[in-house]
Amino acid sequence: MIIQPNSKLVIIGDSITDCDRARPIGEGLFDALGNGYVSLLDSLLTARYPAHHIRVVNMGISGNTIRDLQSRWQTDVVGLKPDWLTVFIGINDVWRHFHSPNQPEWHVPLDEYTQTLDELLQAVRPSLKGLILMTPYFIEPNTIEPMRKMMGRYGEAVRQLAEKHQAILVDTQAAFDAVLNDLHPMALAWDRVHPTRTGHMVLAIAFLQTIGYKW
Amino acid sequence: MIIQPNSKLVIIGDSITDCDRARPIGEGLFDALGNGYVSLLDSLLTARYPAHHIRVVNMGISGNTIRDLQSRWQTDVVGLKPDWLTVFIGINDVWRHFHSPNQPEWHVPLDEYTQTLDELLQAVRPSLKGLILMTPYFIEPNTIEPMRKMMGRYGEAVRQLAEKHQAILVDTQAAFDAVLNDLHPMALAWDRVHPTRTGHMVLAIAFLQTIGYKW
Amino acid sequence: MIIQPNSKLVIIGDSITDCDRARPIGEGLFDALGNGYVSLLDSLLTARYPAHHIRVVNMGISGNTIRDLQSRWQTDVVGLKPDWLTVFIGINDVWRHFHSPNQPEWHVPLDEYTQTLDELLQAVRPSLKGLILMTPYFIEPNTIEPMRKMMGRYGEAVRQLAEKHQAILVDTQAAFDAVLNDLHPMALAWDRVHPTRTGHMVLAIAFLQTIGYKW
Amino acid sequence: MIIQPNSKLVIIGDSITDCDRARPIGEGLFDALGNGYVSLLDSLLTARYPAHHIRVVNMGISGNTIRDLQSRWQTDVVGLKPDWLTVFIGINDVWRHFHSPNQPEWHVPLDEYTQTLDELLQAVRPSLKGLILMTPYFIEPNTIEPMRKMMGRYGEAVRQLAEKHQAILVDTQAAFDAVLNDLHPMALAWDRVHPTRTGHMVLAIAFLQTIGYKW
Amino acid sequence: MIIQPNSKLVIIGDSITDCDRARPIGEGLFDALGNGYVSLLDSLLTARYPAHHIRVVNMGISGNTIRDLQSRWQTDVVGLKPDWLTVFIGINDVWRHFHSPNQPEWHVPLDEYTQTLDELLQAVRPSLKGLILMTPYFIEPNTIEPMRKMMGRYGEAVRQLAEKHQAILVDTQAAFDAVLNDLHPMALAWDRVHPTRTGHMVLAIAFLQTIGYKW
Amino acid sequence: MIIQPNSKLVIIGDSITDCDRARPIGEGLFDALGNGYVSLLDSLLTARYPAHHIRVVNMGISGNTIRDLQSRWQTDVVGLKPDWLTVFIGINDVWRHFHSPNQPEWHVPLDEYTQTLDELLQAVRPSLKGLILMTPYFIEPNTIEPMRKMMGRYGEAVRQLAEKHQAILVDTQAAFDAVLNDLHPMALAWDRVHPTRTGHMVLAIAFLQTIGYKW
Amino acid sequence: MIIQPNSKLVIIGDSITDCDRARPIGEGLFDALGNGYVSLLDSLLTARYPAHHIRVVNMGISGNTIRDLQSRWQTDVVGLKPDWLTVFIGINDVWRHFHSPNQPEWHVPLDEYTQTLDELLQAVRPSLKGLILMTPYFIEPNTIEPMRKMMGRYGEAVRQLAEKHQAILVDTQAAFDAVLNDLHPMALAWDRVHPTRTGHMVLAIAFLQTIGYKW
Amino acid sequence: MIIQPNSKLVIIGDSITDCDRARPIGEGLFDALGNGYVSLLDSLLTARYPAHHIRVVNMGISGNTIRDLQSRWQTDVVGLKPDWLTVFIGINDVWRHFHSPNQPEWHVPLDEYTQTLDELLQAVRPSLKGLILMTPYFIEPNTIEPMRKMMGRYGEAVRQLAEKHQAILVDTQAAFDAVLNDLHPMALAWDRVHPTRTGHMVLAIAFLQTIGYKW
Repeated sequence: MIIQPNSKLVIIGDSITDCDRARPIGEGLFDALGNGYVSLLDSLLTARYPAHHIRVVNMGISGNTIRDLQSRWQTDVVGLKPDWLTVFIGINDVWRHFHSPNQPEWHVPLDEYTQTLDELLQAVRPSLKGLILMTPYFIEPNTIEPMRKMMGRYGEAVRQLAEKHQAILVDTQAAFDAVLNDLHPMALAWDRVHPTRTGHMVLAIAFLQTIGYKW
Repeated sequence: MIIQPNSKLVIIGDSITDCDRARPIGEGLFDALGNGYVSLLDSLLTARYPAHHIRVVNMGISGNTIRDLQSRWQTDVVGLKPDWLTVFIGINDVWRHFHSPNQPEWHVPLDEYTQTLDELLQAVRPSLKGLILMTPYFIEPNTIEPMRKMMGRYGEAVRQLAEKHQAILVDTQAAFDAVLNDLHPMALAWDRVHPTRTGHMVLAIAFLQTIGYKW
Repeated sequence: MIIQPNSKLVIIGDSITDCDRARPIGEGLFDALGNGYVSLLDSLLTARYPAHHIRVVNMGISGNTIRDLQSRWQTDVVGLKPDWLTVFIGINDVWRHFHSPNQPEWHVPLDEYTQTLDELLQAVRPSLKGLILMTPYFIEPNTIEPMRKMMGRYGEAVRQLAEKHQAILVDTQAAFDAVLNDLHPMALAWDRVHPTRTGHMVLAIAFLQTIGYKW
Repeated sequence: MIIQPNSKLVIIGDSITDCDRARPIGEGLFDALGNGYVSLLDSLLTARYPAHHIRVVNMGISGNTIRDLQSRWQTDVVGLKPDWLTVFIGINDVWRHFHSPNQPEWHVPLDEYTQTLDELLQAVRPSLKGLILMTPYFIEPNTIEPMRKMMGRYGEAVRQLAEKHQAILVDTQAAFDAVLNDLHPMALAWDRVHPTRTGHMVLAIAFLQTIGYKW
Repeated sequence: MIIQPNSKLVIIGDSITDCDRARPIGEGLFDALGNGYVSLLDSLLTARYPAHHIRVVNMGISGNTIRDLQSRWQTDVVGLKPDWLTVFIGINDVWRHFHSPNQPEWHVPLDEYTQTLDELLQAVRPSLKGLILMTPYFIEPNTIEPMRKMMGRYGEAVRQLAEKHQAILVDTQAAFDAVLNDLHPMALAWDRVHPTRTGHMVLAIAFLQTIGYKW
Repeated sequence: MIIQPNSKLVIIGDSITDCDRARPIGEGLFDALGNGYVSLLDSLLTARYPAHHIRVVNMGISGNTIRDLQSRWQTDVVGLKPDWLTVFIGINDVWRHFHSPNQPEWHVPLDEYTQTLDELLQAVRPSLKGLILMTPYFIEPNTIEPMRKMMGRYGEAVRQLAEKHQAILVDTQAAFDAVLNDLHPMALAWDRVHPTRTGHMVLAIAFLQTIGYKW
Repeated sequence: MIIQPNSKLVIIGDSITDCDRARPIGEGLFDALGNGYVSLLDSLLTARYPAHHIRVVNMGISGNTIRDLQSRWQTDVVGLKPDWLTVFIGINDVWRHFHSPNQPEWHVPLDEYTQTLDELLQAVRPSLKGLILMTPYFIEPNTIEPMRKMMGRYGEAVRQLAEKHQAILVDTQAAFDAVLNDLHPMALAWDRVHPTRTGHMVLAIAFLQTIGYKW
Repeated sequence: MIIQPNSKLVIIGDSITDCDRARPIGEGLFDALGNGYVSLLDSLLTARYPAHHIRVVNMGISGNTIRDLQSRWQTDVVGLKPDWLTVFIGINDVWRHFHSPNQPEWHVPLDEYTQTLDELLQAVRPSLKGLILMTPYFIEPNTIEPMRKMMGRYGEAVRQLAEKHQAILVDTQAAFDAVLNDLHPMALAWDRVHPTRTGHMVLAIAFLQTIGYKW
């Protein structure tokens, strides 16, 4: 299965998605799509399938959690009338537990994360031709490391919601894990979160392969 | 055929290659490889074949012609001891005939271009495991347009040198022509020379597919 | 015929007109008129006919289409009470069909373009001493090139509206075509749209000669 | 008489010529010719006579006097092998008498000015197809004003040298005087020296008309 | 007579007064008073009469005419409750006749200038301990030069209003004229309007000497 | 034991030491000592023991390995005539194995690291009153993580050299390990290498406590 | 006594506190706490007592007096719901008497200072677990110097209010006085107000020691 | 006595003199003289005695001590062939004892200061028409304050050298002391060294009055 030609694909997320995209709408020429995986998958799609005319719109905002997505869902998702929607959220929801332990109200607990994402998907699913959910990840091979472990639980929630809402699930953690067999995390993301160019390419390839694009 | 794991691949060229790479050697973390096709093919290779550890070095310099390559060949090619070498030159050699018609000494005639490139390749070929030549291109579908026509003749010279020196030929003009069936040049390069992100991806994919990488 | 001494001439258009003019009104000393053809024709007029005291006002805004002109017509044309008015619009209306093929709502179709321009001229013509319409252009000698061809149809619409509204028609496409006999488009505008200094002079001379100024 | 097609015209002078030209050689695309009269006359020539291919090179340097020209004559004039040469110098030689009265060694006296210019022209005249001398000027209608008066004497020296060396004399003072009948100096140059865009156009037109170009 | 110790002196005017003063109120440490004559007279007063504690407030705004003063009189003069007031306006009212001849509505005619200034002074005079009016000037020794001549008429109007409102008149034109016996205008202000540091000192000394300060 | 009053303490190292110190010598007022642990320990010493007048000199340079220290040892250590010397090197020697796996000549092997450091210490030890060696660290609690493990081996080498050269050993890894019981690495250094302000304070306290300062 | 683990400590003050903290709330990673004593005491606390998880919030604003604190007390203190509160204000209240003697309404008299601070503390004390008052200081050993003397009176007022409101009093003047036995004020603060890094460390240590932290 | 008309006056010193003057020679239009007392005394002289044409050259360099003056004496004093010379040095020689107590080799002891200045004056005095020595100062009214006290001794040395070399002595300390009766040091220089605009005016007036200028 692939995205139908002439579809409009909106991608919403955090800094991994944002990557300095244009404001208020991340769409158009030059660097409007930012310099991360969104731009890469758009370029891969257009270079390889120029006749498909997939219209990609980047709505990532750095630092966002599911709470921020909720507050801008109407404007930044529903209002853009996507044919396909990609949601890639959760890294900050988890990360803040660890980098800001003294600020509990900055942490998003798993149940709030799951429930909010569920409601948002509910509201928009009927109007979509296709839905893609990307799991949050942590570029850390040690599966019992605390942040990796918590990230795994949020990723599992995404997997279940994908099933419930008939979405394609892009398992980004698995994509990075595969590469970590040959490369140390330092070669993919110094903070294990924000990828190098290679790390963004890992995401773009995982995205396209999971959907079903042949190369 | 593919590049042998653990090989060092040096790529030399003009602004299409350069793309703001690091100086003096375009190698290393972050944006050392620039933001053009070199970075893309490095990311594609590393993300897809992380165990191959291909070492990519970007030695492009904006505005270069074959004359400039000659003057820095010893330092920037031979001195770096590449296993594989890619040469992507000729666009400026042709372009200056058209944008600066009053300055004839800025133009590089076809015979000088061919002979110089031939000599440079001669000097380095024996020490290489592999050689890749990329044709110059003009993102213009009208084959009788004067600059496209002249570019075609320079590209043909590259094709013949590839044969002579047992090099892999990446026909970049053909790669862009294929995409031009579905997209106007304005969507790939406003000046028909410096590609958008999509245009750079066209180059990276052509490079990898011609060598023989499977996806 | 020439513009009457002491007249106020307002010129409205897109980036070709704008060229970094002063805001909100492009009028006055130093670089208030921008650095494009508007400044050149003002300088040519003042240097050659200093006693005429033609008052030139630049109201171009980069990226504008006829839709944008409609939304600011009351403020930026009618409100300025011009004696003479010049309208130079349409390049972006056409261009976006080609550089942003995936965004159909960004394209301005020919009928909408024609009808909107017609209405705007209708509204202001009675209050003017003179009206000048400049055709959109594409600096491309190949008349069957798709964007050149579409630009020709929009230019033809301008020609018909000039006739209907008793306007002077400045055929900018013809002016550029004349120069293209001796110069490649690369010497006049790398993207075939935004002119070099020479290209802007082509526009200024065409403007003054069409009106009827002797040198 | 006009400049022969395909000629190389070098223009050397001070800030009026310089106008932010490219270094070390003021030649080529974009703003290489600066934003003053040199760029204007190049644009006028190219737009009106595109087949002539006059190659214009701007070698002005802000703040120069005849002493500075002497020190760089070999490199910046002789070494460039011009077919035609334009020399436009003397304003700073005079001006410094007035704005820096306490620094007598900064002033260039008339006899030194005349003799140095004479020697420089002598050295290069035989190798030239044509020579153009532009008088220094002061945009001040009051002919007994001290600086205007002194400038007049330096201009007269240029006139005599033009005769001696068979040069075309562009009387820039006369060109400005004509416009000053209708415009106050404040509309042409706030300091009566550095022209507005209109003032630069006055120079460009005087240059071309004196040589003999028809419009 | 001198300004009473502990008085608050507000100075309102145009760019000659402004000189990059602090906003919204030009009062306080460091460069709050700008770098023109206001700062100089404050420094002279404080260094020579440190016990007087004269409080100086700079309310100049570049480009202002009497019209602008009228619109901000309530806030910038009355609202600050000055003991002493200095008004220094008129240069732009005159200048615009000459540098922008095509924009008649930018010129302030003499009668409007006089009447507005008269009304403003009327409104504030009763609340003041002292009033100082500074004439506009033009640093041009030729008294029949058109702009100097017109400036003289505006200065004469100020002289008459000083008499009517019992103000101290600082004749800035006379102060500059005295220096022009020994210095060319170029040594005092390249555009004959905006003074060098020496020109600002001429103003500061004239101000203090006219009021009656001994040194 | 503490550093003798009026001693000169030179600290050499990499980016952890450098922290934007002054060049060429990191000594003096304001931010000359950089904004890392060096500045903190200087402030702690001076605030708590103002009569001791310990003179701290920061000679860290970002990115340095033991190879770089060798090349500048004569100038940056011996030439400064320290009473006490601190060496804090090795993080980059290890790190590059992981973030740049394709560039083997960028890696410093353990034996080269040990032998070079040994020779450098040999050369300078006799002239010193005291020597302090700081172990390299990796802010990672998992002791079998590959980079942590390799860092441990380099730290062990430092420990042995400390013994051999009668140096005080500051075990920075142990200092961080203690804090990692209560804080996730993300709260101390996003890349587990470059510390936050808290991380630098951990280093400064470990330094002073190990030497023997009471608080 | 120490601050209870997991407490929230809000610190409000002037430029000594501010030090370029984040806006609107000075809390979080990187430089959110500014680069002054607040950041230092947070680092000291966290490095030494990582399990205490004291949450520090910096609400200093440069230039503030007690008047400014009053106007933002509700938002910046009460609204943040602190467990512990630190108030460090008064330096500007005093300083302005001396650096701006002509502007009496900029000075805050002692009685207004005392009464306002009293009211603010009254309003918030019941909701706090702990209150810390820091005296204003002047880094000047001469106790009869006028500004030092006046600062002493404001500090005495703080001491009395500390007693009245059961607050811990941090006597910053005494802390600086102790260091001034061995260091000239120039080594601690060039203007005797804004501390060097060492001066800020003096404040941080005084703060922690007064509360009762052992080192 | 005054400086003879048409004399060249060179002023050499430290940051108080420098004030951002032009390099390499501080002479000419605009801000070439910097924005401190040198510019002020030049403006005062020129505005009041425009016929005298005193040529002022500022050769101050921030941070200089007598050692730096020695190393550039030949180039920056002798080589400029002054008629009159002003030397204003010593503040940094003293200051460093206090702000950098740990760096004894940065301090210039009194005997070295005196002897070096003596030698420098010896070498140049015969060629001068006049010599002016300005004492170093500290804007501190407390004469037993340590830095004020040491500064007094250096000032006394200057007084004796003035006598020995028949120089005019400008007692800057006395000039500031007079103003300190009415103003706190904070109103003249926040660090008691670098003056506000008023402080620079104190220096300029002291300079001119001591020489003997009437106002």
